[in-house]
Amino acid sequence: MEYKILDKGFLRLVDMMGDDYAAVKAARVSYGKGIKTPEKDRNLIFYLMEHGHETPFEHIVFTFHVKAPIFVARQWFRHRIGSFNEASLRYTELKDEFYIPDHVRKNVVEDKQKAIRVDDEQLKQKALDLIESSIENSYKVYKELLEMGVAREMARIVLPMSSYTQFYWTVNARSLMNFLNLRADSHAQWEIQQYALNIANIFREKCPWTFEAFLKFAYKGDLLKGGE
Amino acid sequence: MEYKILDKGFLRLVDMMGDDYAAVKAARVSYGKGIKTPEKDRNLIFYLMEHGHETPFEHIVFTFHVKAPIFVARQWFRHRIGSFNEASLRYTELKDEFYIPDHVRKNVVEDKQKAIRVDDEQLKQKALDLIESSIENSYKVYKELLEMGVAREMARIVLPMSSYTQFYWTVNARSLMNFLNLRADSHAQWEIQQYALNIANIFREKCPWTFEAFLKFAYKGDLLKGGE
Amino acid sequence: MEYKILDKGFLRLVDMMGDDYAAVKAARVSYGKGIKTPEKDRNLIFYLMEHGHETPFEHIVFTFHVKAPIFVARQWFRHRIGSFNEASLRYTELKDEFYIPDHVRKNVVEDKQKAIRVDDEQLKQKALDLIESSIENSYKVYKELLEMGVAREMARIVLPMSSYTQFYWTVNARSLMNFLNLRADSHAQWEIQQYALNIANIFREKCPWTFEAFLKFAYKGDLLKGGE
Amino acid sequence: MEYKILDKGFLRLVDMMGDDYAAVKAARVSYGKGIKTPEKDRNLIFYLMEHGHETPFEHIVFTFHVKAPIFVARQWFRHRIGSFNEASLRYTELKDEFYIPDHVRKNVVEDKQKAIRVDDEQLKQKALDLIESSIENSYKVYKELLEMGVAREMARIVLPMSSYTQFYWTVNARSLMNFLNLRADSHAQWEIQQYALNIANIFREKCPWTFEAFLKFAYKGDLLKGGE
Repeated sequence: MEYKILDKGFLRLVDMMGDDYAAVKAARVSYGKGIKTPEKDRNLIFYLMEHGHETPFEHIVFTFHVKAPIFVARQWFRHRIGSFNEASLRYTELKDEFYIPDHVRKNVVEDKQKAIRVDDEQLKQKALDLIESSIENSYKVYKELLEMGVAREMARIVLPMSSYTQFYWTVNARSLMNFLNLRADSHAQWEIQQYALNIANIFREKCPWTFEAFLKFAYKGDLLKGGE
Repeated sequence: MEYKILDKGFLRLVDMMGDDYAAVKAARVSYGKGIKTPEKDRNLIFYLMEHGHETPFEHIVFTFHVKAPIFVARQWFRHRIGSFNEASLRYTELKDEFYIPDHVRKNVVEDKQKAIRVDDEQLKQKALDLIESSIENSYKVYKELLEMGVAREMARIVLPMSSYTQFYWTVNARSLMNFLNLRADSHAQWEIQQYALNIANIFREKCPWTFEAFLKFAYKGDLLKGGE
Repeated sequence: MEYKILDKGFLRLVDMMGDDYAAVKAARVSYGKGIKTPEKDRNLIFYLMEHGHETPFEHIVFTFHVKAPIFVARQWFRHRIGSFNEASLRYTELKDEFYIPDHVRKNVVEDKQKAIRVDDEQLKQKALDLIESSIENSYKVYKELLEMGVAREMARIVLPMSSYTQFYWTVNARSLMNFLNLRADSHAQWEIQQYALNIANIFREKCPWTFEAFLKFAYKGDLLKGGE
Repeated sequence: MEYKILDKGFLRLVDMMGDDYAAVKAARVSYGKGIKTPEKDRNLIFYLMEHGHETPFEHIVFTFHVKAPIFVARQWFRHRIGSFNEASLRYTELKDEFYIPDHVRKNVVEDKQKAIRVDDEQLKQKALDLIESSIENSYKVYKELLEMGVAREMARIVLPMSSYTQFYWTVNARSLMNFLNLRADSHAQWEIQQYALNIANIFREKCPWTFEAFLKFAYKGDLLKGGE
């Protein structure tokens, strides 16, 4: 299962452990399936979420493989409860892959945390051309430096924040819910929202009760609400 | 798979995610199986371990169900990188299950962190009788208090540290290796060593290359050495 | 500054780093005092708390020295984001210090997480006598075992959960607020509430704006509300 | 106290808590100064370090204010045990401040993790000119985009990894030692080494016994050795 995100990025679920029942069993510290009746199990998940008992959800764990622009990865890596392995530009040459937006956003005067889409077609085209040619130029210099023999770790300092990077991310469901609280929200940058929305989809599919209870009792963002 | 430990304890592997290849794939941030050749994959694991690159091992995750005396659980819970869910004596009545040793240890004068077994049969019998009757008495009082209507959370304050408790523990392989460094070691208390040795067995079986590389390059304890 | 808690426990603030201004400076990543005007600084703290920007509060750090019964310490140590050093009963002999309640609580039928005080004087006296004599008996056996030469780590397994232990706890303000959310709450066990209330007092005194903003926007418990 | 680092960076110690005695007191869980004799206290620190008892060093805490290029900050933020607050380029305009190296490094064929300085003056000048003009061009485009009204969060995607950023970092001595193990080492990138060496200086000055014991028993890097 691979979700295409932005122009060249992706999100893949590499592996996972546990499901709604894993949280139920951990909460009951129980043997075997730990199942009473589906209704009781579901109620337990709702009870845990409502009362902020979040540790049982730490026994559900996901590993994702992500390809995202560096400015998105920088926001992602601020979530410290989780494990990251990123491809290093010290040892590997960067491929010619950069995020080029397909729209342009402007800052909003009233709320400096928000940015909205511009529909001025001329402005949009001019801005996107500028962005693209600047990135092309940076990459050309990067390649030139490498050809001169400059170390990869040094040449890459000219590369722009839109460069794509890849990483593995292992995270438990509790920490994933914190990620969704902050990133599946209109105050997050639009680009990381796209990743967060796909993570939410995977989470909903794999742990439907937990997801439902999360939306009902613990979700602090806004993007996942409406459609419910 | 359930390992019997001490007189009434156990260790069960409830679930796990990943194996040696999970570390290989995370280290290479690679697609698909991420396999080159078994030899190269194995070499990579040894390279990572030798050079202290421990993050790839965080993508291997285990969930255990443990039954252990409270004084063992107290040592266990000091390992903060991991997830715990313990049965609560505030809401559940303790069953009549206590750890009664089958041997007696004395402190060693030269090394206050060590304790050695006594082979004085008379001393042993006297000490074990004392322990058992003290524990029985505490439990009797506990039951009496409950029958009088005293709250479980209050009655349990008379219960001894040898009371058995149960918990779920989710831990990644990096943190599990830290646990083995400290607890699969002759300076750890004998009782927790028994759990650590069984955890080591499971780890060896599930991640043979990682285990071998751990013993070779990163293990700081002593109990797992000899038999290799 | 030492607060007496329960019959023989205490809480001491050993050291601390930062105050309201430390959070302000960290949020602004600013030089020097980072002060604009007291009003703006205070508003920033309220803004951060209201919008769940909790990282600036991690730069305020406290070190406490705590003496508490083991069943309280066990609840305390479940808060993993923080540093603990506890006196070990493997190397040190336990002094004759146990928590003996001055009241008795019963479980509530309607809410198994609650326990209420009993005012039946006869029941109370009988229960407390039982508790005290059981604890005395356990301690007598412990001393006897030590005199026979049994190792401290083994003799202590008969000691009751009401035994006093001591530990150092270093915790940042963000994690301390999580502690207060769970422990300065009527669903927490009464004994740990007493510690939490004193921690809240220290927090209020040292970081008055942060405390006020916490109560207003982020506090999920109930005990700190009323009196405000 | 502010250390100038690289061409425009710095490291400032904003605040700290504890010293060698804080570790001694925590290890002994002791009252008051916790001092026995300076010799015994120093010996305890060496004993703790030699035997891997690292928790007492968590009670020594530092807050730093750092200005560093983004590619350095990215390496820094991988150290998850610590608190970060970074100035955001979503809300603040980037100043015209970029890291321009004063030397050029080449990759080493035999060891892909190493890079060595070039003394070919012509190559060096050509490479540095390329780097500088590429960075200037990127910044020019960034400013142009802002003037057109493009949102800061979007315009910054053209900015290079050499852009300076600033952040607050609160870290305990145990985690700081892990940082030094990895970054005060010749395998780390030269630029982050410069920060690590200055952090080591501050650590040595503030906690001389702990630093000495660290070098003797726990340090895994190479840069701090020789000069001792």
